[in-house]
Amino acid sequence: MTTFHQVGERGIIQRLARLVPGRPDVRVGIGDDVAVVEHTGDHDLLLTSDAVIEQVHFLSDAPAEQVGHKAAGRVLSDFAAMGGEPLWALVDLVAPAETRVEWAESVYRGAARLASRFHLAIVGGDTTAGPVRELHVFGVGRVPAGKAVLRSGAKPGDVVHVTGSLGGSLAGRHLAFEPRVAEGRWLREGGWATAMLDISDGLVVDLERLLESSGVGAEVRADRVPVSAEARAQKDGRTALDHALSDGEDYELLFTVPAARAADFEAAWKKEFDLPCAPIGRMTDRKGILVLRDAAGKLIRPFCEGYEHFA
Amino acid sequence: MTTFHQVGERGIIQRLARLVPGRPDVRVGIGDDVAVVEHTGDHDLLLTSDAVIEQVHFLSDAPAEQVGHKAAGRVLSDFAAMGGEPLWALVDLVAPAETRVEWAESVYRGAARLASRFHLAIVGGDTTAGPVRELHVFGVGRVPAGKAVLRSGAKPGDVVHVTGSLGGSLAGRHLAFEPRVAEGRWLREGGWATAMLDISDGLVVDLERLLESSGVGAEVRADRVPVSAEARAQKDGRTALDHALSDGEDYELLFTVPAARAADFEAAWKKEFDLPCAPIGRMTDRKGILVLRDAAGKLIRPFCEGYEHFA
Repeated sequence: MTTFHQVGERGIIQRLARLVPGRPDVRVGIGDDVAVVEHTGDHDLLLTSDAVIEQVHFLSDAPAEQVGHKAAGRVLSDFAAMGGEPLWALVDLVAPAETRVEWAESVYRGAARLASRFHLAIVGGDTTAGPVRELHVFGVGRVPAGKAVLRSGAKPGDVVHVTGSLGGSLAGRHLAFEPRVAEGRWLREGGWATAMLDISDGLVVDLERLLESSGVGAEVRADRVPVSAEARAQKDGRTALDHALSDGEDYELLFTVPAARAADFEAAWKKEFDLPCAPIGRMTDRKGILVLRDAAGKLIRPFCEGYEHFA
Repeated sequence: MTTFHQVGERGIIQRLARLVPGRPDVRVGIGDDVAVVEHTGDHDLLLTSDAVIEQVHFLSDAPAEQVGHKAAGRVLSDFAAMGGEPLWALVDLVAPAETRVEWAESVYRGAARLASRFHLAIVGGDTTAGPVRELHVFGVGRVPAGKAVLRSGAKPGDVVHVTGSLGGSLAGRHLAFEPRVAEGRWLREGGWATAMLDISDGLVVDLERLLESSGVGAEVRADRVPVSAEARAQKDGRTALDHALSDGEDYELLFTVPAARAADFEAAWKKEFDLPCAPIGRMTDRKGILVLRDAAGKLIRPFCEGYEHFA
């Protein structure tokens, strides 16, 4: 017998993924953040779900509207990472019987405010008693057929970019992030991004996932990683860089652009968006190897475990 | 301040439904079991989610494969009730870190066995730590455009039918039911059913929902309600009929057929299915009023509260 704790989230998913039935119309199944299925000749559907659980994803006294913002935002960020367009969502709400209806209304207000900005309709769900408060948001989006930006398309030489700034999620950013839906869609429409994901478990952990899916390596310049003001303000003995590399829940986009297009890309980005976008390194042919160097080229071995749910 | 307990599941849903953003392509939103959205000219998509939570929907020592069967089966039954075709599902799995991976594998085996029989692919989901074991299954199905069988189409005079037999869910039926997918689809394709739902909270409660949605009443002959062997075997002082009327979790189809087609329908059903299908009464124009009579025509007032999550 083996426990979830012993195997970890990734091990569990690998074991369960072997057991599930497929269909010929499934383009991308378990293993990516978002499933991609063929539906019409014109469009593929994107299917994703994310849980937001009391004491795991939010503290019991977290502002209710921010809890709703986070629940809708995680799904919107998944669509952003595929270059997709959000369409519809369902919400499973779990709560003890003594929960206040006003709390749930505030949660829904927060989710609705964010969802409506991105034209994501909330069309149903389930409401059930349970020991703690939870939201499970299930989202459906779409993308032109075959055009979803996956984790698997990066090539050696591609330039790695990250939007916004990273780190300090526990200082409040994890409840108030902005899903990069317009940016993800623009990156897909311009054919700029060869591979993309959103940073949920930390830059290092998520970049390693991209390396694994694409069968490449990466060399990252730590001094080019955009560090948030919140990460700099942390006073826990860890460096601001460590926070930026490993806190997670940034929900910024991490993506690769072919080297030959990198200069054009940077000019086009600046013309389109005020949001900063930093080139932080390059993909290499050293499969699965992530190398971090400081400005002087010296190797850095960061403290960065990422987030493991069953630790 | 008001608690979930005070307002009840239905009251909560009504209050939350006011807050959510819509889209012009939403045909049926919050309030039905399944949301219906326009997607292509040919087909509408059906979106549904159902939770299966330890100590609420299954006991801690319930056979794991049956827990998986129930989780997939509830979603399949939702599609059946719309006359729809199952396509894809996501599963959010919540569990404490000490949960055995083998338990999760058995759950997935149970879900996969049932899902694959109905060509429902499991394409992704989320895995998260939480205080109890839970499955949230999100399903996408489809139906020809505008053809989903809703709760709202029943007319006075229509004959009410129910498939299979009812009651005794706690004797094990709630973990081992058969979703009536083929039957639901056949009812939709033949244009037989004017309104339909699946019995999850009990015949009386679910029939009252159908009456409310359709703006009609019903007169039901209690002696025609098909009572299961498990309901008859209950020794708790309540009658077998009370169990059949109120236990819930039968996942049988409850639907209405126009009186003029009732004889043709019964002949066609018998030719197509071995499963029994019983005419139990008629719709009336007494809006929202459900009348139950025994074989002699005498009024019956059953003990039937249905299942309330936040009681």
